[in-house]
Amino acid sequence: MFKLYYTPGTCALASHIALEDAGAPYEAVRISFKTNQQNSPEYLAINPKGRVPSLVTERGILTETPAMLAFIAQSYPAAQLAPLDDPFAFAEVQAFTSYLCSTVHIAHAHRMRGYRWATEESSFADMQRMVPKTMSACYAMIENNMLRGPWVMGEQYTICDPYLFTLVQWMEGDSVNRADFPRIGEHYARMMTRDSVRRALAIEAAS
Amino acid sequence: MFKLYYTPGTCALASHIALEDAGAPYEAVRISFKTNQQNSPEYLAINPKGRVPSLVTERGILTETPAMLAFIAQSYPAAQLAPLDDPFAFAEVQAFTSYLCSTVHIAHAHRMRGYRWATEESSFADMQRMVPKTMSACYAMIENNMLRGPWVMGEQYTICDPYLFTLVQWMEGDSVNRADFPRIGEHYARMMTRDSVRRALAIEAAS
Repeated sequence: MFKLYYTPGTCALASHIALEDAGAPYEAVRISFKTNQQNSPEYLAINPKGRVPSLVTERGILTETPAMLAFIAQSYPAAQLAPLDDPFAFAEVQAFTSYLCSTVHIAHAHRMRGYRWATEESSFADMQRMVPKTMSACYAMIENNMLRGPWVMGEQYTICDPYLFTLVQWMEGDSVNRADFPRIGEHYARMMTRDSVRRALAIEAAS
Repeated sequence: MFKLYYTPGTCALASHIALEDAGAPYEAVRISFKTNQQNSPEYLAINPKGRVPSLVTERGILTETPAMLAFIAQSYPAAQLAPLDDPFAFAEVQAFTSYLCSTVHIAHAHRMRGYRWATEESSFADMQRMVPKTMSACYAMIENNMLRGPWVMGEQYTICDPYLFTLVQWMEGDSVNRADFPRIGEHYARMMTRDSVRRALAIEAAS
C-alpha cells in the first residue's frame, strides 16, 4: 500500500492518475498549502524539501514527479505505462517528463512563486507579466514538436499523458489561450474520458 | 556511434562523463554559445529547444540530461551506472537527477539567464543577488539529506555522480563557499581522480 501526499492543483495529480492507471493500492493524503502544512515538522520528516508530491513505499520515500512516474510504470509493468524494455523509447518518455518538470513547470512557477528566485515586488510583477509568453512558447514546442497523438508518445498511452494533462490544467490561470493549441486541447479532452483521470480528480476534489 | 552535442561549462558535461564511464563509442561536437550556434537552423533541426546537450543515436535524438543519463546507464548495463533491476533504487537515482535539473540547475540559471523569466534589468539584478542563497540552500539539502557517500547513492557509483560533479563546478561562479559543504567537496575531489572525468574534461578543454 503506497501513501501519496498531494495538494489539489499541483503536479501531484500526475502521479495520482498514474497510480490509478496502474491499479496500484494507495492512500491519498492531502497536504494543505493554506496552513503551510508542507513546511510542518511532520511533513518535512517525510520530504525535507517541503514540496508535494511524496510517495511513501515499503522501501522508503520517493519524491520528484518524473522519478515517481517511472517508478509506478516499472512497478506495474502489466499496465504498460512506459516502454520498459526499450531504453531509447523509455528515454524519449523521460525526455518529455524532464522537459515538463524543468522547463514548463518552472515557467509556470514564476507566476505565483517568484519569491523562490527574487525578493522585490517589481521582480514578481515582471515575472508574472512574462508567464503567458513563456508558457505559450512551451505549449507551442509541445504542440509542434513533441505530442505525437493521439497520446504524447503516439498510439501507446504512457506516464507522459497524465503529466501533460496536469500542467494543461494551469493554462487558463497562466493566461494561455487553449484554442491556440488544438492538438493539446484534443489530448486534454481524451484524457477526461478516462476512468483513472476522473477517479483521481474526484478524490482530490472531495478531500 | 553516438554524437554528443555539448558546450563547455554546461550540464552537458554530466552526459559526457557518463559516456566515458560506460565505454560508449561517441563523438563530441562542440556548440558555441558565443556565436549563438545553439539557435542556428542547423542545430535547431537537431534540438528545436536550442539547448545542449543533445545525443544523436541510431534510433533518433535525445535531449534532457536526466533522460540521457538513464539511457546511457540502461544501454550499457555492464558499466553498472544505475540499479537497473530495482525500480525503487532506480527511482531514488531519478529523484536525485530530477532535483538537480528542476531545482538546482534552475536556481543557478537565474544568475545569467534571468531573461528566460523576466525582462527588466532590475529583476535580473534581484535574481542575481539571490543566487548565492538559493544555491547554498540546494547544496545544504544535498549535503545533509541526499549525498550518502562515498558516492551519491552510497557504495555504488551511479549517473548521479557526474551530474552532481558538473553542477558543483558552478559553485564558485555562484558565490557559494565550497568549504561550507565538506562532504560535497570530498565527492568533487573523488570524482577528479576518475579517468572518465579527466578524459571528458580534457576533451571539452581542448576542442
